[in-house]
Amino acid sequence: MSGYPSGREEFSARFFVESNFPIEKVGEIIAGEQSSGTFISVPGESAELKERSRARVVSIKTLPAVDTASLHSAYLTRHNPSNHFHRGEVTIAFPIANIGTNIPALLTTIAGNLFELGEVSALRVLDLELPERFASTFLGPQFGIEGTRALCGVHDRPIIGTIIKPSIGLTPEQTAETVDALCAGGIEFFKDDELLIDPTYASFDARLSAVMQVLHRHADRLGRMPMYAINISGGVDEMLRRHDAVREAGGTCVMLCLNWVGHSAVEHIRKHSQLPIHGHRNGWGAFTRSPNLGFSFDVYQKVWRLAGIDHLHVNGVQSKFWEPDESVISSAQSCLRSFAGIQPLLPVFSSGQWAAQAPILYNALKSVDLMHLAGGGIIGHPQGIEAGVQSMREGWEAAVQHVPLHEYAEGRPALSAALKKFGGA
Amino acid sequence: MSGYPSGREEFSARFFVESNFPIEKVGEIIAGEQSSGTFISVPGESAELKERSRARVVSIKTLPAVDTASLHSAYLTRHNPSNHFHRGEVTIAFPIANIGTNIPALLTTIAGNLFELGEVSALRVLDLELPERFASTFLGPQFGIEGTRALCGVHDRPIIGTIIKPSIGLTPEQTAETVDALCAGGIEFFKDDELLIDPTYASFDARLSAVMQVLHRHADRLGRMPMYAINISGGVDEMLRRHDAVREAGGTCVMLCLNWVGHSAVEHIRKHSQLPIHGHRNGWGAFTRSPNLGFSFDVYQKVWRLAGIDHLHVNGVQSKFWEPDESVISSAQSCLRSFAGIQPLLPVFSSGQWAAQAPILYNALKSVDLMHLAGGGIIGHPQGIEAGVQSMREGWEAAVQHVPLHEYAEGRPALSAALKKFGGA
Repeated sequence: MSGYPSGREEFSARFFVESNFPIEKVGEIIAGEQSSGTFISVPGESAELKERSRARVVSIKTLPAVDTASLHSAYLTRHNPSNHFHRGEVTIAFPIANIGTNIPALLTTIAGNLFELGEVSALRVLDLELPERFASTFLGPQFGIEGTRALCGVHDRPIIGTIIKPSIGLTPEQTAETVDALCAGGIEFFKDDELLIDPTYASFDARLSAVMQVLHRHADRLGRMPMYAINISGGVDEMLRRHDAVREAGGTCVMLCLNWVGHSAVEHIRKHSQLPIHGHRNGWGAFTRSPNLGFSFDVYQKVWRLAGIDHLHVNGVQSKFWEPDESVISSAQSCLRSFAGIQPLLPVFSSGQWAAQAPILYNALKSVDLMHLAGGGIIGHPQGIEAGVQSMREGWEAAVQHVPLHEYAEGRPALSAALKKFGGA
Repeated sequence: MSGYPSGREEFSARFFVESNFPIEKVGEIIAGEQSSGTFISVPGESAELKERSRARVVSIKTLPAVDTASLHSAYLTRHNPSNHFHRGEVTIAFPIANIGTNIPALLTTIAGNLFELGEVSALRVLDLELPERFASTFLGPQFGIEGTRALCGVHDRPIIGTIIKPSIGLTPEQTAETVDALCAGGIEFFKDDELLIDPTYASFDARLSAVMQVLHRHADRLGRMPMYAINISGGVDEMLRRHDAVREAGGTCVMLCLNWVGHSAVEHIRKHSQLPIHGHRNGWGAFTRSPNLGFSFDVYQKVWRLAGIDHLHVNGVQSKFWEPDESVISSAQSCLRSFAGIQPLLPVFSSGQWAAQAPILYNALKSVDLMHLAGGGIIGHPQGIEAGVQSMREGWEAAVQHVPLHEYAEGRPALSAALKKFGGA
C-alpha cells in the first residue's frame, strides 16, 4: 500500500480480480497500468510525478481461490502457469487531477486496458466512489424522479406505462391509432421500442407528428399529457434536431440507446436538453453477463447518472430475460440510492410485467418511485387496455396497503380478470 | 427459415449461440426479438408488416453440444432445466429499411437486448455483412492508410512509433522535452497514453502548445512532420474545439478513446474532422474476453470503420496482455481486409514490442501497412532513442528481405544491441 500526500483529491473504484499472481501484486499492477506506471522504469517517473499522478491500492479483500482460470490468458500460460488462482477485491484510489470532469477519461481510468491485462484471469468493476465536490462538476440528471412526475402528472404511485407494439414495422398512422387506444385507456407513459428510430416506412418526423396530434387531443381531455419516450438515437446533429422537434411539438421526453449512442453524445444531448432523458440499456448484457468481466450495474448507473440521464431500464422480475429477480431488484435499489449528492434515477421495469409484480416490487423496494411498463399485461388484458391499466393501478394499491392481490381483486373486475388470465387464478 | 420477398434490401449478422432450446428455435426467437416479434401476438402484426420489418434466419450451423451452461440464465432454470446445451452459429438477415444510416440503430439491432435473452446461455456477435450500397451511406475512414502515410511522409514500410511515457504525470515542459528527444531520434509517430487528456497539471492546451513548437522545429529539419496522436477525448464541444486547435497548430492527428466517447460522438468528430482519427480501443477486453459473450474483433472493427476512424489498436504479439498472438494477427488482418467497399483501417501494434516482432508480423500479414509502436524497445535501447528507432527499421528491412535477424544484425550496431538487450542474444 503505497502512501501519497493526503492533500491530493482522489476517487476510487473497487474491482473483482482473479490471478495466479498474488492479489497484492495484481493490485499494484492495475494501479500502475491505470496511472503513471510503465513496464520498464523510465527516467521521467520521479517521486514528484508519482505523487501527483500515481494511483494507489487502498484495500484488498481476499476471497477463496479457485483451481481453474475463469478467462484464458496467453500471458499467464507463458509466464506463470499454475492451477492456483487467487481471487479478491481490490480498491484503488486515483488522483482526480489526472482526469477532470471527463467521462471518457473516467472510464478509461477505471475500465480501460486493465480488462486485457495478461496477469488477470478475471476482472470486473464492482463499485465507483466520487467525492461530492467532484461529482457536482458533472451535469447529472436534469429532471429525475420529481421532474418526471411533474411532467406526467402522476404522484404517490408508480407511473404505469407500456411499449408500442409490434416493436417495429407500424406505419405512422398505425402508430397513432395504437397510441390513441393507449391514451383512451388511461396510459401515463409509453415508449418506442429501442429498435425503432427512423425506418423508411415510418420516419421519425412522420411518427412524431402523427402521435403528437393524438396526444394533444387526449391531454385536453385528461388535463395531463401522457409522456411519450420517443427514440431520438442517431448522429449528434440528428439527435439535437429531433430533441428540438419533440419539444416544439409539445412532447415531454426523449429516449436514447445509451450504449451505442455513447457517453460523450448522451452528455451532449443532456447539455442541450429541455426534456427528461429515458435511458435504454440495450446491449448491457454484453457488459455484465459474465461474472468475471465487465461492470456491475451499480457502476453502470453511477456513470450514466453523472452523464445526466433521468430514467434507466432495469428489466422486470419474472421476465423473459436471463437475469435473476434479486439482480433486477438490486439494480432498482442502486438507481434509487444516494450517490455523491447526485439525484437518483427513476428505475424502469419492463418485460413480462403485469399487476402481480406490484407486491413483489413494493415489498423489495419500499418505494413507488418507478415506472412499471407492461406490454401484454395491458394490451393483452381480456377487457381491453383501460382495464389493463386499471389492473396495474389496483395491483399497486393492494401492494401499498399490504392486501393480498386475490383479496383486493374482489369486486374489482380489472384486477380480477388479470389474475385469471395471466396468473391462472 | 421464413421467406420474405426478395425485393427488400437486407444486411446480416452471424451469432454464436448456446441454449437448451434447439438452435433453430433460438434463431427464430432472436430474429423476432430484434425486429417485429412480440411475446404475445398483437393485432397489428400483419403479414404486410412482417414483410417490411421482420428479420429472418438465413442459415444455421450446428456445433457440438455441451453439458454445462456457459452463462447463467434464471429463465432457463425456471423454464427448461436440462443438462444439454445446444450450440451453433445462426445467421440472421435484417431489413435495411428498419434502421437506415444510423450506427446506434445498427448496434441495437445486432447487439441489443439479445445478449439478455433468457433462452440463451451464450451469445456472441461473430460477423456483420452489409451490401456495398448501404455501407457507402456511412462516412467511413477519411484518410485511411494512404492518407496517413502521406501526412507522415513514410512509404513502403511500417510507420515506426512510440507512446509518450510515463503515461500520465509529466508537465507540458517535460512532455516537450521527451518529444524533442523522440524527434531527434527520428520517430515518425507518437501518441498520448489513453489515460492522458486534460490533467490539471498538464492541460490539453498547454501540452499541445509545448509539443507543437518542438514538432515544427523538427519538421523544418526533417522535411516531414512527425505525427502526434493527441488525445482529444471528452465532451462533444470540447473535442471539436480541440480538433480545431490541433489543426490550427499544424498537428496531423487526433486520438479518441472509442468505447467511452461512443459511436455517435466519434462519428460527429469524423464529420467535422480534417485530420486522421487514431482509434484507441481501451475497454475492449470487457467486450470480447469471454468467448461466450460480446463481440468478435471483426465486427468491432467493421462498425468503427463505418463510423470513420482511420487507425485502430490491435495489441502486440508477445505482449503483456491476455490475448493469444493468433488473435492479434487475426485482428490486424481484419483491419486490412476489404469490407463492403469501405477502405481499410491502419492496424496499430503496441505493448512490449521491439525489432524482433517485425519478422513475425510480416510473415503473418505479408504487409507493411501498419503502425509498429515500441515503448521500451525504443526508449530503453542501450544506445538511445535514435538507435531504438533504427533497430525497428532494420528489423523490418530484415523481415521484408526474409533475412534472419541475427544475420541482418551483423555490421548493424542498432539492431545488434537490441537483440542483445531485449532478446538475450
